[in-house]
Amino acid sequence: MHKKSIVILGAGYGGIMTTIKLQKMLHVNEAEITLVNINDYHYQATWLHENAAGTLHHERTRIDIKDVVDLNKVKFIKDKILCIKPREKKVKLKRQEIDFDILVISLGFEAATFGIPGLEDHAFTISDINSARLLREHLEYNFALYHNEREKNPARLNIVVGGGGFTGIEYIGELANRIPELCEEYDIEKTQVRLINVEASSSILPEFDQQLAEYAMNSLEARGVEFITEAVVTECNPDSIVYEKNGKKEELPTMTTVWAAGVKANSIVEHAGLGTTHGKVEVRKDMRTTEYEDIFVMGDCALVRNTDTGNPCPPTAQIAIQQSKIVAHNIKSLVDGGEMKEFKPRLIGTIASLGNNDAVGSIYRQYKLRGWKATVAKKMSENQYLFKLGGFRLLMKKGKFNFFY
Amino acid sequence: MHKKSIVILGAGYGGIMTTIKLQKMLHVNEAEITLVNINDYHYQATWLHENAAGTLHHERTRIDIKDVVDLNKVKFIKDKILCIKPREKKVKLKRQEIDFDILVISLGFEAATFGIPGLEDHAFTISDINSARLLREHLEYNFALYHNEREKNPARLNIVVGGGGFTGIEYIGELANRIPELCEEYDIEKTQVRLINVEASSSILPEFDQQLAEYAMNSLEARGVEFITEAVVTECNPDSIVYEKNGKKEELPTMTTVWAAGVKANSIVEHAGLGTTHGKVEVRKDMRTTEYEDIFVMGDCALVRNTDTGNPCPPTAQIAIQQSKIVAHNIKSLVDGGEMKEFKPRLIGTIASLGNNDAVGSIYRQYKLRGWKATVAKKMSENQYLFKLGGFRLLMKKGKFNFFY
Repeated sequence: MHKKSIVILGAGYGGIMTTIKLQKMLHVNEAEITLVNINDYHYQATWLHENAAGTLHHERTRIDIKDVVDLNKVKFIKDKILCIKPREKKVKLKRQEIDFDILVISLGFEAATFGIPGLEDHAFTISDINSARLLREHLEYNFALYHNEREKNPARLNIVVGGGGFTGIEYIGELANRIPELCEEYDIEKTQVRLINVEASSSILPEFDQQLAEYAMNSLEARGVEFITEAVVTECNPDSIVYEKNGKKEELPTMTTVWAAGVKANSIVEHAGLGTTHGKVEVRKDMRTTEYEDIFVMGDCALVRNTDTGNPCPPTAQIAIQQSKIVAHNIKSLVDGGEMKEFKPRLIGTIASLGNNDAVGSIYRQYKLRGWKATVAKKMSENQYLFKLGGFRLLMKKGKFNFFY
Repeated sequence: MHKKSIVILGAGYGGIMTTIKLQKMLHVNEAEITLVNINDYHYQATWLHENAAGTLHHERTRIDIKDVVDLNKVKFIKDKILCIKPREKKVKLKRQEIDFDILVISLGFEAATFGIPGLEDHAFTISDINSARLLREHLEYNFALYHNEREKNPARLNIVVGGGGFTGIEYIGELANRIPELCEEYDIEKTQVRLINVEASSSILPEFDQQLAEYAMNSLEARGVEFITEAVVTECNPDSIVYEKNGKKEELPTMTTVWAAGVKANSIVEHAGLGTTHGKVEVRKDMRTTEYEDIFVMGDCALVRNTDTGNPCPPTAQIAIQQSKIVAHNIKSLVDGGEMKEFKPRLIGTIASLGNNDAVGSIYRQYKLRGWKATVAKKMSENQYLFKLGGFRLLMKKGKFNFFY
C-alpha cells in the first residue's frame, strides 16, 4: 500500500504546530510526514522586535526543530523553497524536488513596501532572525561610527519606524529601553538620539480602541518617542526618509528606517497559481484551497474570514496556532477517512508591549489591560505557547519569567 | 609671587604618570598644574587590540581621569588641542587658549599610512577607544550582513591585518579567539572566515629573535591565521586590498583591512616648529627640546636614543612611563631650582600576546618566554602599571586576574 506523503512547507507557528500535532496523531505506517524549512530552527516571530532592538538575544527566540519535532517520525529537509507546482504535486527546492500527496502551505509573511521608492533597498525590516540581528547591529554600528567622523552626523542617531501598528509600536517601545544602553556604550548624550514613529492614520494600534491607543502614545512619548501621524512615507534614501503631511513634503535625516507598516503573504504562494486575493489564498472552511482537495493553506498565507463580521482575520500567531488544530485533524481525516472539521477563529486577546514593563491589551474584546498587569498577561501567553510546542523542558529553557523586573 | 603654570598635553601613559607624580611632588602654592586631554579618561593603549577584537570591553581599558588625578591639585581641561605656540608660550585649544610657563608634550602616536592610496579612507586603525570599538562593531556588522544578502559576499568574512609587528600580531591573535564566537552568533561556518596577516618583511615581530617569531607564527597558523610575508600593500579599496609580492600584484577581497604597519608621532608636534626628525622631536637628555628651556617632549612624540646603541628607542608604554619619572623630577627642579636628571632607557622586557593563553616575550634580552608563562608575566606587568597609576583600588577594578583561563 502506498503511504501518503504529507509535506509541510514552513516551520512558523502554523507549520510547526501542525507538524507536532500530526506526529502524535499519525502512525509512521499510515503516512510519511516531511517538514521543509529554510533554517533548522523555528522562531517566535512575535519576539523578533526584541531581538532587533537588542533587548533579547535571538537564541531565546529561536528553537531548534530537532528539539520539538521527533525526527524518527518526521523527515526534516533544510532547504529553500523555490516554487510550488500544485497540479504536478511537486515542490521545487533549491537542492531537490519533492513529491506530495497532501501539502500544507504555511510560509508566513514578508514585508509589503507598496512600491514606495527606496524602501526595499534602504529600509530595514523585522521579518526573521537574520534581519532582526542585522538591524540590532546596524543600530550599534551607527552609534560606534558617530564619534569617529570629523563631522558628527545626526542622521546616525535618528531612528525612524514607519508604521504605528503592532510591530512598529512594540519595536519602538523596546528601542526606548535600548537607547540608554547604547548611549552609555558609545559615550553619546541621550538627548541627541531621536526615536520617531511615522504613521499614516491619525492614531496608532488600530487593533485597540482610542483609549488604549492614547495610553500607549502617552507612555511612549513620556520615554522620548516622537509621533508623526497622518504622514505618508513617499521615499526612502540611505540617509533620509521623505513623508507627506498636510500636503507638504518633509525630509527627515536618518540612516535607520525600519519599515513595519505592512505585511503580505510570502510571495511564493502568489506564483503557485492557487488563486489569490491581495496575495493570500482563499481557503474553504476546512482550510483547503478552493480548487485542490489535498492542499491546505494556513497562517499569513491564507485568507480566512471572521464568521461573524465577514472581515478577513488578521495575520497573527494566535490564528495560525488555532488553525493548526483543524489542519492536523483534517489531514488525519484525509488519510484515514474521517470527518473534516471547520475552522472558526476565536479572538481570545491581544496585548502590545510598550517596553519598560508597560503594555496595553484587550481580552475577549471586553476587558482592557494596561501597565505591568498587561505585560504579565503577555508573557504568560507566550509561555503557554512554548509549553504547547515543547512541553515543560522548552518552557524552562526559553520562557519569560522576568515578570517584575 | 607668580606661581609657575605647568601644562601637560595628553593623558596617555607619559602624560598621566607625569601628572600624578607632580601632584605629589609639588605643593599647590608652588605651581599650578593643568592637564589637557580630548577625553575625560586615560586608556591603556596596549590593551586596545583586545577592545577592537571584542574580547575585552573598553570599560576595562579606560580609566576616568578623576579616579587617578586629584582634581583639588590639578586643573583638568577636556578639550581638543589644535596647536602649540612655543614662542608665545600658548596652546590653542578648540574652546580656549591657555598660557604655560612649563609645557609637557605627551600626545602619543597616530597611524602612519605612508601615502598608500586608499588606506586613510578605507582601512581601520587601532588608535584609541573610538576606533577600537568601531572596529569591533564593523566586524560584527559584516557577519550580521552576510546571511542577509542574496549573493553571499566572502569579502565580508576575510579580515586582513596589515603589519606583522606588535599591534598586528596581538590583534590577529585576539581575532583568532573572537571569530568562533562571531560564527556562532551569526550562523556562519568557521571555515568560511579567513584571517590574513600581510607583512612586508620575511618574518614577524622584529622585536624578537627568529626562534620566538617562528613560535608565534606556528601558534597562530595552528589557529587558522594565514601569513603573507614579503608582501607590500600598494592600495586599499572599500572591498579589497592590493599587495605586491615577488613582483606580482595580487588583490584580496575584504571589507575589513586593519592597518597596523606603522605609527608616527601625533602630527600636532610636527606643526609646532620644534624641529622634528621623522615627525619626532629631538630632545636633550633631560627630556627638554633642544631649543626651549621649559618645554618637555616625551613618549611617542620624543626622539630618544639608546645610550648604548645610538638607535632610537621604540615608541612603547614602557619607555613613556620611565620618562615620566625624569620629566616630573626635572619640572620640580625648574620650579624650585633643583638639579636636572638625565633619562636612560632600561629595556626590562617585552611580551606579545598571541591570544588563547599564549604569548612570546623576552626579559632583559636574555630570558625567552613563551606559552602561558609569558601570558602570566604580561598580565602581571599590566597589573603593576595599574597599581602605580591608581593604587590597590584601581588594580582591583581593572586588573587582569584570569591567569589560568
